[in-house]
Amino acid sequence: MTKQSQLFAPTLRENPADAEAISHQLLIRAGYIRQLSAGVYSLLPLGRRALRRLETIIREEMEAAGAQEVLLPALQPAELWRQSGRYNVYGPELIRLTDRNSREFALGPTHEEVITALVDQEISAYRKLPVMLYQIQTKFRDERRPRFGLLRVKEFLMKDAYSFDTSWEGLAVNYDAMYKAYHRIFERCGLRFKAVEADAGAIGGEGGTHEFMAFAESGEDTILACDSCGYGANVEKAEADAPAASAADDQVSTHHMEKFHTPDTRTIQDLHDKLGLRPEQVVKTLIYMADNRPYAVLVRGDHEANETKLKHVLDAEELTLADAEQVRLATNAPVGFAGPVGLNIPIVADYAVAAMGEMIVGANEQDYHIRHVAPGRDVRFTQVADCRNVIHGDACPRCRASLSERRGIEIGHVFKLGTKYSDSMQATYIDEQGEAQPFIMGCYGIGVTRLLAAIVEQRYDENGIIWPAEVAPFQVHVIPVSMQDETQVAVSTEFVQRFRGAGYDVLLDDRDERFGVKLKDADLIGLPIRIVVGKTAGDGIVELKQRDSSDVSKMKLEEAISFVAEKLR
Amino acid sequence: MTKQSQLFAPTLRENPADAEAISHQLLIRAGYIRQLSAGVYSLLPLGRRALRRLETIIREEMEAAGAQEVLLPALQPAELWRQSGRYNVYGPELIRLTDRNSREFALGPTHEEVITALVDQEISAYRKLPVMLYQIQTKFRDERRPRFGLLRVKEFLMKDAYSFDTSWEGLAVNYDAMYKAYHRIFERCGLRFKAVEADAGAIGGEGGTHEFMAFAESGEDTILACDSCGYGANVEKAEADAPAASAADDQVSTHHMEKFHTPDTRTIQDLHDKLGLRPEQVVKTLIYMADNRPYAVLVRGDHEANETKLKHVLDAEELTLADAEQVRLATNAPVGFAGPVGLNIPIVADYAVAAMGEMIVGANEQDYHIRHVAPGRDVRFTQVADCRNVIHGDACPRCRASLSERRGIEIGHVFKLGTKYSDSMQATYIDEQGEAQPFIMGCYGIGVTRLLAAIVEQRYDENGIIWPAEVAPFQVHVIPVSMQDETQVAVSTEFVQRFRGAGYDVLLDDRDERFGVKLKDADLIGLPIRIVVGKTAGDGIVELKQRDSSDVSKMKLEEAISFVAEKLR
Repeated sequence: MTKQSQLFAPTLRENPADAEAISHQLLIRAGYIRQLSAGVYSLLPLGRRALRRLETIIREEMEAAGAQEVLLPALQPAELWRQSGRYNVYGPELIRLTDRNSREFALGPTHEEVITALVDQEISAYRKLPVMLYQIQTKFRDERRPRFGLLRVKEFLMKDAYSFDTSWEGLAVNYDAMYKAYHRIFERCGLRFKAVEADAGAIGGEGGTHEFMAFAESGEDTILACDSCGYGANVEKAEADAPAASAADDQVSTHHMEKFHTPDTRTIQDLHDKLGLRPEQVVKTLIYMADNRPYAVLVRGDHEANETKLKHVLDAEELTLADAEQVRLATNAPVGFAGPVGLNIPIVADYAVAAMGEMIVGANEQDYHIRHVAPGRDVRFTQVADCRNVIHGDACPRCRASLSERRGIEIGHVFKLGTKYSDSMQATYIDEQGEAQPFIMGCYGIGVTRLLAAIVEQRYDENGIIWPAEVAPFQVHVIPVSMQDETQVAVSTEFVQRFRGAGYDVLLDDRDERFGVKLKDADLIGLPIRIVVGKTAGDGIVELKQRDSSDVSKMKLEEAISFVAEKLR
Repeated sequence: MTKQSQLFAPTLRENPADAEAISHQLLIRAGYIRQLSAGVYSLLPLGRRALRRLETIIREEMEAAGAQEVLLPALQPAELWRQSGRYNVYGPELIRLTDRNSREFALGPTHEEVITALVDQEISAYRKLPVMLYQIQTKFRDERRPRFGLLRVKEFLMKDAYSFDTSWEGLAVNYDAMYKAYHRIFERCGLRFKAVEADAGAIGGEGGTHEFMAFAESGEDTILACDSCGYGANVEKAEADAPAASAADDQVSTHHMEKFHTPDTRTIQDLHDKLGLRPEQVVKTLIYMADNRPYAVLVRGDHEANETKLKHVLDAEELTLADAEQVRLATNAPVGFAGPVGLNIPIVADYAVAAMGEMIVGANEQDYHIRHVAPGRDVRFTQVADCRNVIHGDACPRCRASLSERRGIEIGHVFKLGTKYSDSMQATYIDEQGEAQPFIMGCYGIGVTRLLAAIVEQRYDENGIIWPAEVAPFQVHVIPVSMQDETQVAVSTEFVQRFRGAGYDVLLDDRDERFGVKLKDADLIGLPIRIVVGKTAGDGIVELKQRDSSDVSKMKLEEAISFVAEKLR
């Protein structure tokens, strides 16, 4: 479909009322997508075309990385999920259903179980390994709060890949191949992004994992990045710089501990506002329940506890903040006045706390705090560890340069799963010695519909979307100023034919609209090259403009062809 | 992936135990598919490649027919299905589920509701019409009895298209465009098929419909086709030749009715076996409940009643055979002895019955029949109509030549829906006079995964699949006799590179298997061109064989390239 008069691409002048993210606004306004239900979207022809271009890029890079395409079912027997142990763990995000024969199924949010069962069934000998399989397929997740258009949805297109190896070294090779393929994919999408270290979370696996983050203000993830050495991690994972074990001698307090009256000061903010205490002088004592046992966790007043790190530190499956009753039981005081002095539960201190010369802490008594408390002298820590979120300006754990904090959208994720699934599902191959061994697995995901939105989050201006050429639904937009002018129509048609002949997808705005309307729609839709055929059409001269630049050049057909060939590679 | 040693394509020597259909057997054995659960299949790399080729053919022909690609969600709000009135009608085939907020959804078995709501929302003016949209997307149907591999499944890839017009004439144009596109698609798939008239069934619509049937012994559908004039219809729809209104005068019985004793003869077969009566002398009296009212339906002993036709004849929503109690109530006799004489419920006679001079019928009394019963004289029919299945040898309703009966697999279906959905969902546009008018719709489906299986049902021999070049996962299969022979390996590699350079997908059997095993696998997988590199490799000479022929030709590289270019167009 090359004629805009026939293209099903309803554009809107106004932003839809409920659209917060810029990609949500623009993809709706430019006629790429429409919402069917919360977190469930239809892709209209422009959206489908752009999505197919992403699929093509992904397929090319997957094949180049040695992955083979498969297509696995969305309907997954619950039995498989029970085998892996995830059926109950996955929670309400997993859509469950029952068929007419009362068999239970899950609608696949991911395919580790299915692929592990398949490969286990079909590959028995080490000689057939390694193998790397991928698919581009629709996933279902019952998001608690779908929002931001295509960024967080219940149904979406995903590229998921899985590698099966006989060794960790083999896994490292495949992981690296995928890691590089992801870089190429996102580069071809014209994105500014960074691969950062991450926590494995619900997918699990013991071997390390990277998230690919597209930088965007609207991103729901926080990234800490070092511009000096290239280190990057999401906030769950980012390591605090290895600290001094304790405060230097000359910093240790020479004062004795002293209780003082601090009425109505349950928060760090209260202590600052009412008593002028700086947050970095104060230590927060958080009571956590880790697998039902209480722990006191100390972090500096200007820091936030990091529960992902704490789970690892405490080796806990479940971790929750204690409720008021549990706090009183542990501290004999109401919430807001907990402190480490005299506490008889394990005390875990963040590195930054252990390095303090003296600190102000809660007194385990309503409306009282204690000052001049010296770590080591007045309080003994059960454990000292990295328990907090790293923040902007902290030292890089690799090179000690200053870290910067940025917002990002997760567009890809690579995991070294190791034997997590092959162990739980007893998926094995026979090695050279004739012994059964679990597959060493990796998994690798890209949210394809989300990727489409992430590109828009980075590439737009006040007038609309600015597509990179490889992703644009059409590369060239030919716009006659007036469809009533026969010369303009004839020249436009010639341009369309020549560009199509050269292998480009061309959209011809043959609508009987005012020129201003056409230009507004063209900016909104965001194709890389615009060719306006106007008054000088009789001389074979048109105006060529790139969407990402304000320059307008006058040129003839042959020049335009070579110009575009040059610009679009 | 071009190296067979790395290809994930597990082949089997034996047919899987439960596979009845030839396509099921071969697609499993050749490593194209694997079952995950009843009616739920994974496509392995060879299957995925073949499926993608089908997708490409379909996309090309859809675009050529003026359809625009979209991608609609599988998660469909139940509310939409209630609007169209299908939520309850669709029955247990519709998979229903509830999200975490207790909102009801259907997993789309088809997308009339979603597309109608979308187009209604986005197109308000006649100027934007017609529009034709299509998608290639996964459908879900909870089949009562999934079987035959990919032929009847719960989850499958479908191409569905929908047209929206302002007039029936416009619909006819789009319908015709799709009808022709379907012909081109199935021709490119190398299929023997026929477009036949069909009944609209559950999709509904008043404007006519054609099914595209691929001929196959394993087909679940029966087609009546006329080789003389080209008429074709499925058995539900095929019309009996317009009959004489009643028997010719000289055929009418001169005997009086006579009751006779027929012990233990509840069936036509019994009457034949025990009393020597020919089926075509006897008339079956079937008691049907149509919307809860009883009807007697008369068909000749050698004919079968056609319930689809009966529903139309009786204008009934629901039609079921009466149970024993209902039969006794209507006839005062047990099942097997019903007859029209003296019956006081409406009597509907098939044309062929009305044309009989005399007939043998049940006596409404256990173990008795009546002979010499003359239509008109002894029995009056409430209605005479076409009520039976047409059979092999019946006259063509168009040209009176003899019809032949064949088995077929439904691979495509085109419907003139008219206003069925736009009426029920109140989907309208504004016409030139400013009046709201319902969209005139058509819908057009191809079961893409089923199409893959249908091709195999027609194209195989005792050794395996015989793919047409456009659908084959690879076009050229290069097989060195021995991977230990350096010359063979070098020549094979050269062939692979040259053929890839010429734009073909090439599979290289680089496995260290015996040559016999390689050939067996090659036949099974079924690629169109096989190139064996053996002893004469040193002279640059290879053996070229087409999968669909037994001829083997010796040739050099350049000859092979031109030969293949010629054969594969």
